[in-house]
Amino acid sequence: MKFIDLRSDTVTEPTEAMRKAMYEATVGDDVYGDDETTVELEKYAAELVGKEAALFVPSGTFGNQLSLLTHCRQGNEVILGNDCHIVCHEVGAASIIAGVQLRTLNSNKGELSPSEIEATIRKEEDIHYPDTALICLENSHSNGRVISLENMAEIRKVANKYNLPIHLDGARLFNAAAYLDVDVKEITKNVDTVMFCLSKGLCSPVGSILAGSKDFIDRARKYRKLMGGGLRQCGVITAAGLVALKDMRKNLKVDHEKAVYLSKELAKLPGFKVMEDNLHINMVFFKLPTSVNSQDLVQHLLERGIKVCDIEDGLMRFVTHYWISYENIDFIIKTLKDYLTT
Amino acid sequence: MKFIDLRSDTVTEPTEAMRKAMYEATVGDDVYGDDETTVELEKYAAELVGKEAALFVPSGTFGNQLSLLTHCRQGNEVILGNDCHIVCHEVGAASIIAGVQLRTLNSNKGELSPSEIEATIRKEEDIHYPDTALICLENSHSNGRVISLENMAEIRKVANKYNLPIHLDGARLFNAAAYLDVDVKEITKNVDTVMFCLSKGLCSPVGSILAGSKDFIDRARKYRKLMGGGLRQCGVITAAGLVALKDMRKNLKVDHEKAVYLSKELAKLPGFKVMEDNLHINMVFFKLPTSVNSQDLVQHLLERGIKVCDIEDGLMRFVTHYWISYENIDFIIKTLKDYLTT
Amino acid sequence: MKFIDLRSDTVTEPTEAMRKAMYEATVGDDVYGDDETTVELEKYAAELVGKEAALFVPSGTFGNQLSLLTHCRQGNEVILGNDCHIVCHEVGAASIIAGVQLRTLNSNKGELSPSEIEATIRKEEDIHYPDTALICLENSHSNGRVISLENMAEIRKVANKYNLPIHLDGARLFNAAAYLDVDVKEITKNVDTVMFCLSKGLCSPVGSILAGSKDFIDRARKYRKLMGGGLRQCGVITAAGLVALKDMRKNLKVDHEKAVYLSKELAKLPGFKVMEDNLHINMVFFKLPTSVNSQDLVQHLLERGIKVCDIEDGLMRFVTHYWISYENIDFIIKTLKDYLTT
Amino acid sequence: MKFIDLRSDTVTEPTEAMRKAMYEATVGDDVYGDDETTVELEKYAAELVGKEAALFVPSGTFGNQLSLLTHCRQGNEVILGNDCHIVCHEVGAASIIAGVQLRTLNSNKGELSPSEIEATIRKEEDIHYPDTALICLENSHSNGRVISLENMAEIRKVANKYNLPIHLDGARLFNAAAYLDVDVKEITKNVDTVMFCLSKGLCSPVGSILAGSKDFIDRARKYRKLMGGGLRQCGVITAAGLVALKDMRKNLKVDHEKAVYLSKELAKLPGFKVMEDNLHINMVFFKLPTSVNSQDLVQHLLERGIKVCDIEDGLMRFVTHYWISYENIDFIIKTLKDYLTT
Repeated sequence: MKFIDLRSDTVTEPTEAMRKAMYEATVGDDVYGDDETTVELEKYAAELVGKEAALFVPSGTFGNQLSLLTHCRQGNEVILGNDCHIVCHEVGAASIIAGVQLRTLNSNKGELSPSEIEATIRKEEDIHYPDTALICLENSHSNGRVISLENMAEIRKVANKYNLPIHLDGARLFNAAAYLDVDVKEITKNVDTVMFCLSKGLCSPVGSILAGSKDFIDRARKYRKLMGGGLRQCGVITAAGLVALKDMRKNLKVDHEKAVYLSKELAKLPGFKVMEDNLHINMVFFKLPTSVNSQDLVQHLLERGIKVCDIEDGLMRFVTHYWISYENIDFIIKTLKDYLTT
Repeated sequence: MKFIDLRSDTVTEPTEAMRKAMYEATVGDDVYGDDETTVELEKYAAELVGKEAALFVPSGTFGNQLSLLTHCRQGNEVILGNDCHIVCHEVGAASIIAGVQLRTLNSNKGELSPSEIEATIRKEEDIHYPDTALICLENSHSNGRVISLENMAEIRKVANKYNLPIHLDGARLFNAAAYLDVDVKEITKNVDTVMFCLSKGLCSPVGSILAGSKDFIDRARKYRKLMGGGLRQCGVITAAGLVALKDMRKNLKVDHEKAVYLSKELAKLPGFKVMEDNLHINMVFFKLPTSVNSQDLVQHLLERGIKVCDIEDGLMRFVTHYWISYENIDFIIKTLKDYLTT
Repeated sequence: MKFIDLRSDTVTEPTEAMRKAMYEATVGDDVYGDDETTVELEKYAAELVGKEAALFVPSGTFGNQLSLLTHCRQGNEVILGNDCHIVCHEVGAASIIAGVQLRTLNSNKGELSPSEIEATIRKEEDIHYPDTALICLENSHSNGRVISLENMAEIRKVANKYNLPIHLDGARLFNAAAYLDVDVKEITKNVDTVMFCLSKGLCSPVGSILAGSKDFIDRARKYRKLMGGGLRQCGVITAAGLVALKDMRKNLKVDHEKAVYLSKELAKLPGFKVMEDNLHINMVFFKLPTSVNSQDLVQHLLERGIKVCDIEDGLMRFVTHYWISYENIDFIIKTLKDYLTT
Repeated sequence: MKFIDLRSDTVTEPTEAMRKAMYEATVGDDVYGDDETTVELEKYAAELVGKEAALFVPSGTFGNQLSLLTHCRQGNEVILGNDCHIVCHEVGAASIIAGVQLRTLNSNKGELSPSEIEATIRKEEDIHYPDTALICLENSHSNGRVISLENMAEIRKVANKYNLPIHLDGARLFNAAAYLDVDVKEITKNVDTVMFCLSKGLCSPVGSILAGSKDFIDRARKYRKLMGGGLRQCGVITAAGLVALKDMRKNLKVDHEKAVYLSKELAKLPGFKVMEDNLHINMVFFKLPTSVNSQDLVQHLLERGIKVCDIEDGLMRFVTHYWISYENIDFIIKTLKDYLTT
């Protein structure tokens, strides 16, 4: 049975073009720098986001944590949002691998206040203070929203004032670019380093990219080995990454349109409340009517071939992606209607 | 020249009684458990705060960090206030020594919301989540306020619900008890472990206490050695600690009264705005008139034998203690008046 | 130009059967446990080495470091050989990720002395001692030799006496089994956890396995996420791993035979001294005649399509593998002869 | 009852001159740099060992670990002897606080081989290698021997060749100087940083010194705060440290003479075998006759007012110090004789 899977865009399987590219990939031992496909992907990725160099890493979490380890010395302080992925969903890795203190600011729908960042930076030398070493942003944010270019530019100014680097968790970077309808470099020009995923909406089975200056990536390459991310013939994976960046990237707007369609249909259901404010990309957040038991609903849908996650913090989240068709959405809505009327 | 020192109560020199006790102290090698004075202090301190056991440590920061290391495994998450000492003034040590992720909540004048704590605790098992391992409170708070027993009791309930321990940074624990006019055990009954300082208002030259269950302190004793805090004939210091706990402790209310007196006199100065809301213990926070250059004022006072710190976050802080007399306060006010009129 | 690559067996490209299996792989999101190919591989791998459970990891270094992190708490001590991969070739990762103290013993050609291990274990409780938490062995050893079953059994006895677990770095585990001509379980029965590579002689492009008890692997799965090794549709890789374990594993004896052939031919060259004592698996170590400049030789071979590494610690190492044929070996010998006579 | 305590020189109580100096000490808040006695001690100590600056720390372990943290970044490698204090008796602290990999060499009676050090240094850049960041020596060694100046000078040459700093664990540095009959600077000129204890043979109740370049000590001062070693009115302790360095230091040769006397008397006892090779300073190592049960002997002596430690690694260790008189030694020998004849 083939499921309609709305749990996340991480569930996206590789496309036929990807499978073919992987099958045919020219490979070599990438620890020796011999994997031509990976070298090509890293070069392509770096240019795409306007950085000097890029590095293939096994996952988004790996890329973020590698960036922290490369930017910081143990005991440094990193300023970031209280609701970002690094704080909430990376298993506390920053306290183990980079050994840094995460100094969180309450985000305003994912955006950090430039003035609060400035107030939080450890400015003068004081024997009680760790050194602020990095600011981390996330765009698009895991709350479904895209951070504005204006907000990023203002934070860049603050960072420049104190000579601090910025790392961007861009797990869904191209969704943000698609939403803003700008070249992705308009986003990444405001940051020193960026991690973005080849999986998720871009459908690669495995892997992410960390990009930055040549010197930064040289150092990150060694720390990648330390963290166990030095792969061998990874051309079999990075071949899919090239398809993701060259072709699938253009498909993200369609995913967003499907999300809008899905949200409108969900909003018509009695008692369903869609968080329209958070609908920037491919994630539809909504509240169920109080009469509905979410666990029961999840089970009902599962039995009818639809996979969804249970509510988290009071909200359900349906995620559209390449493998969700308009027909699927209509079937989802119909199944929900059936559920509500029985 | 003997200065009038308002920078902090950390500047308090030992009393004559302390110096005498130190001179006469019976000592032994405390790493072998042979220092009778230290053994007596630890026993006395444990009983005072209603815990099974206690341990002498070189400083408050040492005691807090030792507690984190003993409570947690690397990668665990600790919930605490964004403005507490562990986050702001311990040089990022928690990310190095205990290797934990500090998950901060915005405090309301030093108090944490029990419901926010509950919302932040990692409840269900999720592969993305670190384990919440500890809640840290601070009382009295470094903002000068004392946390209410009600707030602590509510947080205790939440902690119990999820079987989580609470550590209390009680650097000025006895000031809090003095302000609340309760036995200190009324405060410490709500926490599993507590650190409090023998220095500061209690006038010991060096040292703090970490107290908790016997098992906890046994493990902490070994980690104290790891952190380099296994001292030898520390009876020469702990002798002063016994004087601090037996005698000086009773003096703290006088320090608070002096702070009230000082605050009233400051409030009479033109343009001075005292933060009365933060005046619970021996710290007077106030704003200078905009016409006053704080650096210039600090220098002016210094030249007249008065040491104060420059403003931090827009506020000046004057701290009263054993070595500040009412005559000193009158002289301080007179000196400020002179400054304002010239 | 297709090179004859003797630098390592890490250079092995996937076979056509692997590429096909990867192309056709059934995949799913493995973070949700939905990747059937990966589930199958982990089950197959666990049974192969006689453990309850297994986990796919991105690399051998990743698997070793994950094992340390799962076995130990920060500050624990791990006993292992001074010349093992974890000490020499994993970039110091154990001091960052697991935060453990590596306590090395001088190995005797890769074997550790059971009595030295016993003498090194921290037996009694002493306030100066970290806890010994783990013993690590390596088989086959990166020096080319296979550790005897007797040595492993004796170390197992010591470990049992002190209730200590043993982790085996079995990057080339199946080479060891092939050399000893035993079922691999005869090796792994002596250890609690084992890491082995699907790449290297087994030709998978990417990945390794960590196997152990169910409880251990459950905890390791979460730490794998922390370390950034939670991959998504990794069935595209693990499909090759299944081919590696089911088919390629049987091919390793052939690699060893090629190494013997190569070593005999090398020994015939004037001034070449083969380390026959270290020739257990697919690695031929040898000394060059003093008249030969190794860098010059490496360059000469490269220009003729043969890739080799320069000497390390005075020795050259040629590694045979699936993609090295007898014809290749004859060509290598001929090229060397030409070099020596010109 | 006043015991004759041979367990270690760490048991030395402060002298009357020290107690008086502590009683009268001028003190201030040392975190603000206001403790004149501590400032004086640090200046005096720096000059004594020929370094630009020095820092008072709570213990020898604290000083060594602080030095590692200041010299190294997490993940760096430190070369040192397998039997040194940092490896054997500091609770694994280096893996927690500095986060470094200890790379041990088997020492030859405490001395490291310069050529083995050179072979162990990670020379060329290799993606598998951590960076060697430091060499640690120990003099005098905890095995009772003094390392020769020649050995230190040769290691200095190797360190210079690779631009590596050397840290000296000189817990009993002045014992080494006394044995070698040289100015202590003849020893410390070969190292970049040195830790030495004010306690032990020098009789201070608490504390050690870390000395090095001004820049190093400036950074160490902040890390000392991080590690919880920022003390307040520590003049009450450092006053004893000044007595230790100015007066007690000259007494160490007498301790060594007492050890020689004790060793000769022990050697006369039937079946006692003194390790004369290890008798450089104030520690006498010896083997008991096989007929003697060590635990029984320890108990017998304790009941007669003599404290000794049980055998470790087959040897007993008796340590002489300021508070052990020749009369005490005669009494010890007499008590042993009584024990052997009953």
